[in-house]
Amino acid sequence: MLKAVQILGWSSGLTISQRLTKTRKSSSSTFISTSTINPLNLFTSSSSPRRILCFKNLTTRMSSSRPGSDPVPNSPTFVSVQSAGDVRKIKFCQWCGGPTKHEIPDGEEKLRAICTHCDKIAYQNPKMVVGCLIEHEEKVLLCKRNIQPSHGLWTLPAGYLEVGESAAQGAMRETWEEAGATVEVISPFAQLDIPLIGQTYVIFLAKLKNLNFAPGPESLECRLFALDEIPFDSLAFSSIYVTLNLYLEDLKNGKLKFHYGTINKRPGSSPSDIRAFTLDYHLQP
Amino acid sequence: MLKAVQILGWSSGLTISQRLTKTRKSSSSTFISTSTINPLNLFTSSSSPRRILCFKNLTTRMSSSRPGSDPVPNSPTFVSVQSAGDVRKIKFCQWCGGPTKHEIPDGEEKLRAICTHCDKIAYQNPKMVVGCLIEHEEKVLLCKRNIQPSHGLWTLPAGYLEVGESAAQGAMRETWEEAGATVEVISPFAQLDIPLIGQTYVIFLAKLKNLNFAPGPESLECRLFALDEIPFDSLAFSSIYVTLNLYLEDLKNGKLKFHYGTINKRPGSSPSDIRAFTLDYHLQP
Repeated sequence: MLKAVQILGWSSGLTISQRLTKTRKSSSSTFISTSTINPLNLFTSSSSPRRILCFKNLTTRMSSSRPGSDPVPNSPTFVSVQSAGDVRKIKFCQWCGGPTKHEIPDGEEKLRAICTHCDKIAYQNPKMVVGCLIEHEEKVLLCKRNIQPSHGLWTLPAGYLEVGESAAQGAMRETWEEAGATVEVISPFAQLDIPLIGQTYVIFLAKLKNLNFAPGPESLECRLFALDEIPFDSLAFSSIYVTLNLYLEDLKNGKLKFHYGTINKRPGSSPSDIRAFTLDYHLQP
Repeated sequence: MLKAVQILGWSSGLTISQRLTKTRKSSSSTFISTSTINPLNLFTSSSSPRRILCFKNLTTRMSSSRPGSDPVPNSPTFVSVQSAGDVRKIKFCQWCGGPTKHEIPDGEEKLRAICTHCDKIAYQNPKMVVGCLIEHEEKVLLCKRNIQPSHGLWTLPAGYLEVGESAAQGAMRETWEEAGATVEVISPFAQLDIPLIGQTYVIFLAKLKNLNFAPGPESLECRLFALDEIPFDSLAFSSIYVTLNLYLEDLKNGKLKFHYGTINKRPGSSPSDIRAFTLDYHLQP
């Protein structure tokens, strides 16, 4: 489950109302535009095992890139990244109750909340969202959300990883909670980072152990969708949209692979702007 | 960098003083014993793309397993996992300063710290440790730690992912901080969960952009090691030990792959007990 209170300020939810398809490709960048074509045609295959893709909407050109093409670090300023969005909201020490100050500690680069009594630092780190892409007789299992954000939209069963469980265990737990389904995890499928909101999606391919499934409290409905009936126009999150498209592309190419990528929101865009993201640094083993 | 204060109680540090090698394999389990043989012989190849390996020490037999072989969930009790180790140490709300109570909220399964004033829940989630396995002319770059835990032992450059960066960016940042090296991330190599301490290692294969590297403040020394000279007897963490062994195995088999796995500490063992882990749920795309 995804609890709004646990999210760093807001959700990654994107209401997908338009479809994306690749329209132009060059050696250095890939351009993608909105369309309503068959999802199985969303991607073209690549001969490179370490290829790069870039999602974008029709109106904005954006080059794909990979981590190695970032500015070369030549000084400690390289290590600076933007401060966590809500570090200033941490006003008290959760261990001793003392008030915090907000400073960059010696030897660090980022603004932190530091207790003025016990000197402990309240670090903030990205959270992992773990889930399952469940295959069953050329169909996939989706859940219609009964909670905000993205109430009424479709998603893969997924939620925050808890301390004490592995990612695979967490993905199975979330699948049980949201879809009442007992699954076997087959293999890792995707890691998709969303830096702006401090989330990383880890999605596993899985299969049903039996055909018993039913919506949990956080789902309105759970349903197996044929591949050409996946409701791309009403998916809950950009991460799910990307995952399902990569899955269809892999099927089209005859081989399921592992995908690493970064979903970057367009600067200044609204969290609900479904077209405001690119898939960067798409890497594969 | 790995800051002790950021760790959930204690570190995953394992001082590797003995080598592991597979000694027996059956259809349902794999047994591994301590040895001092060539690291390139640590593993045998597997014909299955979704194989399972299990590390263990000589004295304790332990079957390998995969997520799907866990007890079948047939009630909400399935979703229970052990409470976060230090939830009771959260005594105050970091947002309003109110004292917390420790209860299982309605609709949840785990003990949480809940503010008695504003009702907010202080969720605790696993942290991602990101790093680089840097290849250069059949050598790999390692850093000798200048900080605790595992001071004086060798590791890959790695540290906690920060909010605002992708895993690949974080891995490059840590490599710059700890080894002064500018690298290009090539591909994802491993995700290794350590549930007991709430950490997930995400390791990328990378290459040097140039030969300039030097130890940062947290490193005593940085050095390129030939593959048969990797100091397996003085590695800092079990996760690094596993990563390097999987790398050598892949090289031996002629193909670098992506590895997902869970490093489980043996129940009741000390954090410093280097032999007290198994690699479970080893899955590949």
